[in-house]
Amino acid sequence: MSLESMKRIAKSAKEASYALPRLSNDERNAVLESMAKRLIQNTPKILKANQKDIQNAQKAKLAPALVGRLKLDETKLKKVAAGLIEIAKLPDPLGRLLESVKRPNGLIIQKVSVPIGVILIIYESRPNVTADCAGLCLKSGNSVILRGGKEAFESNQAIHQALVGALKEYKVPSGAVSFVASKEHRDVDHLLGLRESIDLVIPRGGESLIRRVSDISKIPVLRHYQGICHTYIDREAELSMALSIAENAKVQNPGVCNAMETLLVDRNIAKDFLIPFAKKMKATGVELRGCPRTRKIVKGIKAASEKDWRTEYLDLVLSVRVVDDVTEAIGHIRQYGSGHSDAIVSDNAQTRKRFLDEVDSACVFENASTRFSDGGEFGMGAEMGISTDKLHARGPVGIRELTSYKYVITGRGHVRT
Amino acid sequence: MSLESMKRIAKSAKEASYALPRLSNDERNAVLESMAKRLIQNTPKILKANQKDIQNAQKAKLAPALVGRLKLDETKLKKVAAGLIEIAKLPDPLGRLLESVKRPNGLIIQKVSVPIGVILIIYESRPNVTADCAGLCLKSGNSVILRGGKEAFESNQAIHQALVGALKEYKVPSGAVSFVASKEHRDVDHLLGLRESIDLVIPRGGESLIRRVSDISKIPVLRHYQGICHTYIDREAELSMALSIAENAKVQNPGVCNAMETLLVDRNIAKDFLIPFAKKMKATGVELRGCPRTRKIVKGIKAASEKDWRTEYLDLVLSVRVVDDVTEAIGHIRQYGSGHSDAIVSDNAQTRKRFLDEVDSACVFENASTRFSDGGEFGMGAEMGISTDKLHARGPVGIRELTSYKYVITGRGHVRT
Repeated sequence: MSLESMKRIAKSAKEASYALPRLSNDERNAVLESMAKRLIQNTPKILKANQKDIQNAQKAKLAPALVGRLKLDETKLKKVAAGLIEIAKLPDPLGRLLESVKRPNGLIIQKVSVPIGVILIIYESRPNVTADCAGLCLKSGNSVILRGGKEAFESNQAIHQALVGALKEYKVPSGAVSFVASKEHRDVDHLLGLRESIDLVIPRGGESLIRRVSDISKIPVLRHYQGICHTYIDREAELSMALSIAENAKVQNPGVCNAMETLLVDRNIAKDFLIPFAKKMKATGVELRGCPRTRKIVKGIKAASEKDWRTEYLDLVLSVRVVDDVTEAIGHIRQYGSGHSDAIVSDNAQTRKRFLDEVDSACVFENASTRFSDGGEFGMGAEMGISTDKLHARGPVGIRELTSYKYVITGRGHVRT
Repeated sequence: MSLESMKRIAKSAKEASYALPRLSNDERNAVLESMAKRLIQNTPKILKANQKDIQNAQKAKLAPALVGRLKLDETKLKKVAAGLIEIAKLPDPLGRLLESVKRPNGLIIQKVSVPIGVILIIYESRPNVTADCAGLCLKSGNSVILRGGKEAFESNQAIHQALVGALKEYKVPSGAVSFVASKEHRDVDHLLGLRESIDLVIPRGGESLIRRVSDISKIPVLRHYQGICHTYIDREAELSMALSIAENAKVQNPGVCNAMETLLVDRNIAKDFLIPFAKKMKATGVELRGCPRTRKIVKGIKAASEKDWRTEYLDLVLSVRVVDDVTEAIGHIRQYGSGHSDAIVSDNAQTRKRFLDEVDSACVFENASTRFSDGGEFGMGAEMGISTDKLHARGPVGIRELTSYKYVITGRGHVRT
């Protein structure tokens, strides 16, 4: 497709973004419910399209894990539809009065939440993202342009067609949920230059996708990097609590971004903690890689290399480092962390405060597992992902984080003197 | 200077950004007061440096207006120093508890304001920006890297030296306020690539500077575009109010970004409004440029071209267009506006609501002059500028808008099940 087609898509998304804020919360919810219904009704069509993607993937000899991510079935589609209903149930993120002041001259200044406008989502192989993102953007009054991975092209297109039916039913301009029917990288590059009509880009996927988008984009990017999350066991940690938090952070769901990748242990407690911890890890099949001091305590494990401290394993592997104190722990996290989620376990309130103040991450935990870093656990409802950026939104990005604000100023003929 | 020197500057700013949040509000205020004192004490040195800049500017045959912007004197420096004292008096923007929830499982989730980190300010010829920005960033706990225009190089350096004295006095790392002692464009380009150590770029100056920075930067940019501000006089406007608001928006200070550049008038009121308005404008020396319908009512004025609708005159010039109704007014603003500040004058609450809802600008006014679009008038205190971006901060950017937030999560051994 050409630059001109991309411009057309972006322009129709922009036009639709003018119409969306005029819909009430009830109207937006009705569209979401219709979308959910249509996903279920169109299950055979969507699964047939998905079958094509799977066949293409197998022909192209994609890794089985990737094929697994692509694969849809009736149960998965029901879950996606249920997700849209959940989004409809969330409180309206628009029109919230964030602040209101009456100035001494009588001017009333109100800060009110409004949609961002047009959001471009660039994602990889999971076709459920198509419906999830459309739902989150619609609820927050934003037009969305969906550009999924070429592996899931047929599935995404079929899902998009089902969703568009709901837009038509409620006379919402179809530009509100646009699908880029192109498999070419060049078209993404075109889109990333359209600063006039697209307000925000959210890349969802692996680090290389995110870096590529960040490098090319002329549009602001909200980044959802994966997490290199740390747990620091302080010298004044309660041993049993430390063991259960560290184990939970590593093994409860190792394949997600809020799972622990590096454990830092104060040298004063290292022996008492690491020996029972290593035993637990052995029992759960976690491979440990340690710094020299760790390897003196836990025998027979691999040495952690410089690369290990920078690696998000997303697997049953954990790097372990013994540190002198909380200062060295904070220094390690500054050097190697990804600004996602980091935890301290300690009974000393002052030490905890230092850690919480000085670790510059989206989520900092005291005496809790990093696995709680999640929009659902925070009570936000469905989330777009976790932002490790510090501008606009940091941490879990839910529907409220997909809004901007405007100032509405009311006078009675006020002029400035 | 080399990429390596730029990296060193950015790194030392990052290191300092770790120390800044440890300063209490009182400590930051003491530094600001010392900075103000030192600006006054160093007046002779600063004015001598300024003299060099002025001489260079005259040698280079800079336009007198530009030389005027460069010029400092004792009164101006006193004002800059007083500005720093004003910033010190503002409430602490850090450590504000933005939200707090206790989850059903007992986990306490607090959202707390924190500094952004390292802010790079790229500005043009006014040397007072050096002190203003240093003050705003210090108060909000951010390290700042200052890169001023080469025309003001000597003045900026002298001001920076005075400011650094205050940092030393209070043992704040000097990286907290860094000055890029380079006049080369290439060094700006280097800095704009240092995403790992710089968190935000704010270009302050003309449109070409802002576009250049936006095009090159790999770091998020907060834009302070100038404003193409509109006032729409509705058919149900009270005539005397409309006249006084429109006059105020145009002539009270025409050289600033919140002054009106285009007047839109409903055709039903056009004659009644435009004839007395044109008389007023003639009396105050404002040149009108009109659409065909305007020129039928106001004789002898120039035609407004397509270019006029897109021009920020910053001068006693105004483009005028007669529109069919509020819908056409909103359409005009969407097409030509800059998303800064736009006003409606009307006695009809429904029409006002439509305008306020559908005009997608940072500040929308009803029955008031756009000239109130200003951090000071909003009660924010000193401001960095007005953002026309929709991400992070929109409208006036004060010290609170120079903060991010983090989530602090407190458990008692909480693990996820």
